[in-house]
Amino acid sequence: MTEQYRIVAVASDHAGFPHKRVVAECLAEAGLEVLDLGTYDEASVDYPDSGRALAEAIRSGRANRGVAVCGTGIGISIAINRYPEVRAALCHNETTARLAREHNDANVLALGARIVGTEVAKDCLRAFLQTPFAGGRHGPRVDKLGLPPTSG
Amino acid sequence: MTEQYRIVAVASDHAGFPHKRVVAECLAEAGLEVLDLGTYDEASVDYPDSGRALAEAIRSGRANRGVAVCGTGIGISIAINRYPEVRAALCHNETTARLAREHNDANVLALGARIVGTEVAKDCLRAFLQTPFAGGRHGPRVDKLGLPPTSG
Repeated sequence: MTEQYRIVAVASDHAGFPHKRVVAECLAEAGLEVLDLGTYDEASVDYPDSGRALAEAIRSGRANRGVAVCGTGIGISIAINRYPEVRAALCHNETTARLAREHNDANVLALGARIVGTEVAKDCLRAFLQTPFAGGRHGPRVDKLGLPPTSG
Repeated sequence: MTEQYRIVAVASDHAGFPHKRVVAECLAEAGLEVLDLGTYDEASVDYPDSGRALAEAIRSGRANRGVAVCGTGIGISIAINRYPEVRAALCHNETTARLAREHNDANVLALGARIVGTEVAKDCLRAFLQTPFAGGRHGPRVDKLGLPPTSG
């Protein structure tokens, strides 16, 4: 694991809470520092709040990478991707997690706790952490993802 | 099909071009008006440009719904979700497409052409078009997705 991945923020809503715990354990076992932004139990919370907390941690540099979990991963990834500095990739298997790093230089892995089981989630996490950005033709495209929306 | 889904914008990069054609055919067969924002062949283009074109069409009201396709669906959905007015759901099966409508009131379906085949894509499209938003506890969460990112 390289220095650039030293601190990984994790965040979830209530549906994603059990997966977040598994993810946090894996990260700690890999020697990474975990910044746990909640939620901390299964009481109902709103996934946009969880997503914004994670996006703000990445944007501020409090964390280098993030993992976000809600029921499908859809809602929390939409919330995170409101921030042009952050690229949250919703993945459902190792292949998509690998391509999210190679092609999109994703800095947040989003998972759906009611869609993929914990073993699949762990495979996604491993691919996400271990795969470098491929650069080349993908570089200018990723740069364009950093632009704010056009006004209108 | 109700009035609210009358015009559906479609957009893709080169990798998503063949799937976009299939999607456009299905939409036309269902009696919907298709606003095709390109790309129009398999020459290389940048998915963020395709995504922004689609997001702007939804925001401006030129289209009510959208379908976006790139290689994995990850890059184009990130680009679209920069726009707080738009909710692009990356789906890979009928279940996720249904939940994207029920829980997230998604107005754009994002698909990965190198991840799901055209028959799966058509199932996603059908679920996306036919499933109403569930409302209730999901309403305030969707409202929060409409907020711009916090400044910082």
